[in-house]
Amino acid sequence: MSTNPTALSGTPAEFTESSATALVNARWAQTPDERLRTILESMVTHLHDFIRDVEPTHEEWQRAIDFLTATGQKSDAVRQEFILLSDVLGVSMLVDAINNRKPRGATESTVLGPFHMVDSPVRELGADISLDRNGVPCVVAGRVLGIGGEALPGALVDVWQANGDGFYDVQQPGVQPELNLRGLFTADHEGRFWFRSVLPAPYPIPVDGPVGDLLHATRRDPHRPAHVHFIGGCSGYRPVTTHLFLEGSPYLDTDAVFGVKPSLVRPAVDVDDAARAAEYGVAAPFKLIEFDLVLTPA
Amino acid sequence: MSTNPTALSGTPAEFTESSATALVNARWAQTPDERLRTILESMVTHLHDFIRDVEPTHEEWQRAIDFLTATGQKSDAVRQEFILLSDVLGVSMLVDAINNRKPRGATESTVLGPFHMVDSPVRELGADISLDRNGVPCVVAGRVLGIGGEALPGALVDVWQANGDGFYDVQQPGVQPELNLRGLFTADHEGRFWFRSVLPAPYPIPVDGPVGDLLHATRRDPHRPAHVHFIGGCSGYRPVTTHLFLEGSPYLDTDAVFGVKPSLVRPAVDVDDAARAAEYGVAAPFKLIEFDLVLTPA
Repeated sequence: MSTNPTALSGTPAEFTESSATALVNARWAQTPDERLRTILESMVTHLHDFIRDVEPTHEEWQRAIDFLTATGQKSDAVRQEFILLSDVLGVSMLVDAINNRKPRGATESTVLGPFHMVDSPVRELGADISLDRNGVPCVVAGRVLGIGGEALPGALVDVWQANGDGFYDVQQPGVQPELNLRGLFTADHEGRFWFRSVLPAPYPIPVDGPVGDLLHATRRDPHRPAHVHFIGGCSGYRPVTTHLFLEGSPYLDTDAVFGVKPSLVRPAVDVDDAARAAEYGVAAPFKLIEFDLVLTPA
Repeated sequence: MSTNPTALSGTPAEFTESSATALVNARWAQTPDERLRTILESMVTHLHDFIRDVEPTHEEWQRAIDFLTATGQKSDAVRQEFILLSDVLGVSMLVDAINNRKPRGATESTVLGPFHMVDSPVRELGADISLDRNGVPCVVAGRVLGIGGEALPGALVDVWQANGDGFYDVQQPGVQPELNLRGLFTADHEGRFWFRSVLPAPYPIPVDGPVGDLLHATRRDPHRPAHVHFIGGCSGYRPVTTHLFLEGSPYLDTDAVFGVKPSLVRPAVDVDDAARAAEYGVAAPFKLIEFDLVLTPA
């Protein structure tokens, strides 16, 4: 692929449907960064194969150019339409999977999403992260463990979520309190964490841009199922970026960004047990979601 | 590819490195436009194969997102950075090749380029399209023929080119006269056309954007060799969009957009023949470039 078809010839090599890829890839030969050259050679090879497969007309290729241009132009400081495109094409999740190969039993990762844009406020175990209590109350509890089952005291658990209407605080300034439904917790001496919240609602990804147009043209549903974001970390272990998905939520089968993994789906269970209610500082009966984070060594 | 892995299952199908492509492509199943569905399935398949090949880190993928975003944002009413990207990746020429399969002997096509943005002014045969005579004078002459050798009287020949400094009129408003180095000619009763001009100079494609950054990072030369743009057309025949490339020009082997085809390279010959000079309305000796346009039936 990196041999130069023009090197031995005084006249330009013929650009044809079959020679095109070798000709273009020969042009990366002087690239100082070897990794960049590898990526570009692979990209051109697959891009040309795509073109040869579908044989776009000039008009179709122009439409692709227009779509990509609009996707770039829709992006700004708070909106990233190309990440959204990467999400709905399953590329974000594929990159995530490639970078998070783990042994069975470790908590699987999923996409970070665009709403971890502010630092979560440090909160005490048991705190209610729903500052406006808008939604169905629940308790979320679990343990941070190593893959060998060892508790990880002092592990950090960063959580953020949408409210019962399907909106994050940053989407509703002036409606939701600042830092609503966010919290940074430190696991106790047994690696336990627990906090109060409300059940998150499903929500659609933004559809007022080119990606929304694509979903509409292909009759795809833009919704994500109900979920709570987590980043779990502990010194000596690889952090995990993941979601807890609410069992029974609509859209678990059709998550617009392909984030769902069956191992991450948990029920909200009705618990009518005064002792356990007291443990979490709530009244019985209450809704409990249990979710352990199992980390692999760094 | 269009079978739905989630269709028979109550729980979400597992998104893995190997299942990702089938899962994503299943989501196009309801697309009403069959051609769009075919394109999207192929695109996702090749895009995922690329990702699996290079296994980008999260940081590398973010860099790709940033590059694509900047490419969209560099584009405006007069600048199209995604077309430029398509050009330097050889995709524009590949799409052109796919859409212009022709029998041997027909004039080969090449890229339209971004500077055919104004209608060429109608000019008489023999007119000088160099309104400011800035450059080495020359005559361009040829015939418009059908693939069987038949002359095509009344064929239209649309030409535009850069000046002796490598700039198009639209790049130098106030410096070059309006409509400089553009002309729309009608071939005579023998399919002949001829006009006076100046030798075009090579020039670099715009390098003040992400595509320029890419060329710089890969040590690629941004220049295009000296050329004159042509669109030849005649009722009953397929029009051809092409270039005449100047033999001996630098960058014929390294055209940044891969537009050169050996069949399109022509010398500027010194002609010291008073009769021929008189034929073209110039003084001997003069530089002559001969270039026939051979069209295929519509």
